[in-house]
Amino acid sequence: MKKRLSIPEYTNGIVTGNRMILSRAITLIESNLEEDKQLAQAVLESILPYTGKSIRIGITGVPGVGKSTFIETFGKYLTSQNKKIAVLAIDPSSQLTKGSILGDKTRMEELAHEPLAYIRPSPTGASLGGVTHKTRETMLLCEAAGFEVIIIETVGVGQSETYVHGMVDFFLLLMLAGAGDELQGIKKGIMEMADLIAITKADSGNEHQANLAKNEYESALHTFPPNGTGWFPQVLTCSATEKVGIAEIWEMVEKHREMLSKNGKFVENRQKQNLVWMHDFIRQSLEQNFYTNHNVSSVINDIQESVSQSKKMPIQAALELLEIFYNNK
Amino acid sequence: MKKRLSIPEYTNGIVTGNRMILSRAITLIESNLEEDKQLAQAVLESILPYTGKSIRIGITGVPGVGKSTFIETFGKYLTSQNKKIAVLAIDPSSQLTKGSILGDKTRMEELAHEPLAYIRPSPTGASLGGVTHKTRETMLLCEAAGFEVIIIETVGVGQSETYVHGMVDFFLLLMLAGAGDELQGIKKGIMEMADLIAITKADSGNEHQANLAKNEYESALHTFPPNGTGWFPQVLTCSATEKVGIAEIWEMVEKHREMLSKNGKFVENRQKQNLVWMHDFIRQSLEQNFYTNHNVSSVINDIQESVSQSKKMPIQAALELLEIFYNNK
Repeated sequence: MKKRLSIPEYTNGIVTGNRMILSRAITLIESNLEEDKQLAQAVLESILPYTGKSIRIGITGVPGVGKSTFIETFGKYLTSQNKKIAVLAIDPSSQLTKGSILGDKTRMEELAHEPLAYIRPSPTGASLGGVTHKTRETMLLCEAAGFEVIIIETVGVGQSETYVHGMVDFFLLLMLAGAGDELQGIKKGIMEMADLIAITKADSGNEHQANLAKNEYESALHTFPPNGTGWFPQVLTCSATEKVGIAEIWEMVEKHREMLSKNGKFVENRQKQNLVWMHDFIRQSLEQNFYTNHNVSSVINDIQESVSQSKKMPIQAALELLEIFYNNK
Repeated sequence: MKKRLSIPEYTNGIVTGNRMILSRAITLIESNLEEDKQLAQAVLESILPYTGKSIRIGITGVPGVGKSTFIETFGKYLTSQNKKIAVLAIDPSSQLTKGSILGDKTRMEELAHEPLAYIRPSPTGASLGGVTHKTRETMLLCEAAGFEVIIIETVGVGQSETYVHGMVDFFLLLMLAGAGDELQGIKKGIMEMADLIAITKADSGNEHQANLAKNEYESALHTFPPNGTGWFPQVLTCSATEKVGIAEIWEMVEKHREMLSKNGKFVENRQKQNLVWMHDFIRQSLEQNFYTNHNVSSVINDIQESVSQSKKMPIQAALELLEIFYNNK
């Protein structure tokens, strides 16, 4: 990592929209070094007054649904409307295959060159929990830098959707028409979270199939319990390559915000998310303090070895380590 | 809860196979009262030497696959072979619908009356993490009580499968023939964990369809990466109502244990699971110590209120609470 800046250098750089300093601040936030964490915390506290003003949109869909193409076209539509947009990615590497699904920095090249757009690929090798934590804070930095729309992108295959749903205002699920059966491996739980389903690749010639899928998903949505916001999830079709149906999707995002702002659910949702965030942060801090404690870290390898060799039971080992931790705080 | 017993009363009761005392010990373990936790811990430590000798089997499948019927028939087959069998359930209540999927105590009535079988329904209202933690310890109690086969049952709809996979020796996935498409909403990740897929309801007249499904799943399994144990996942068909194919499934469990015992992977897997268990226990203890700390609990409601009303940012609130915790340990 490059030399760190001072807190005011980071803060001023961010709030004046300096991209290079924003990127360096995000890297600082993603750092696991103890001194970086303290600095990152101070930077975050200083930019807090400038946060919270964006629309936060989660976008998910299985690989192959055309997520990059969609986000590129959707993002360029927003920049053409003079909106500043940031795209963040959460990359839950497959447990067994260890494959990184996102993280391809060459994606969305056109959008990446738009002066009003900022794309931050996901950090590699990070755990889901870790990335999530950093994603929330990265979102705050982007808001302080003046981005009005924050897109958090994830792959519709795992638990990351629940995390993302817990940090956005609007959850958009991309689906293909007629690929496999109606659910395409997307779990019911993910569909239940969607505020809008967009059928992608409704390119000319494919409109009929896309409309069939639209009807099918609309029926499916009617079988779900109400989401408690007063908003009924919608289904639209779009073609990212032909730039059809893109404005309508943004209109739906705005309609959703308008409705939830009026009935108080927009603020209520963010407040609930803030409580979850607080508890997540506490859990992560507790674990971090524990594992970086000098007395714990000096014996943990030996104790893990004993557990591995079945010389010590897991609960006994944990209790020993906890005693060491609490006696040496 | 009834009056607690002494540690030797619990221990002797459990290791002599006294069902009533086993049930009371499990209830003790599930208790959230501080004094119960200490007693539970002492009981666990005292029975540890008697644990580890069972075969631990995880069984999952979507609702409608016939899980209860299968476990009833499978369990009765095992008791007919003079094996002592315990069935534990993990019930991840749906996030949105809050519905309890398992927990129906009237299920598996015939098995419940077998003298060699013990069925423990899942505690209601418990969080997934909580149940998981208790499930591991309940498993130990059942092992100390002499049960030779422990079945941990879960619903194939969420993340609980990963937890269960992390605590069993053998993971059995139940699937229906020809219901919807090949994946039936079961995520690829769950199929990747399976040591055996059993096509259920291969009743007379349905054999052809079941065999087609068998072939289909066998092909699907070939596209997955190796699981690292040397065991290649198998597919079988069975009819629980007609008691066909049940013995073959148990044979497969034994074949798996034999192979993995020879190549060292059986022990290696349990050792890995023990490490995960240790870290899970540490995380849970840290959180429990934090939230039950007197100084934390006396202010947390006010602080949560401030966060809810956006008067305080989540990270600031978390840091304040952490400082209170560490200054008052």
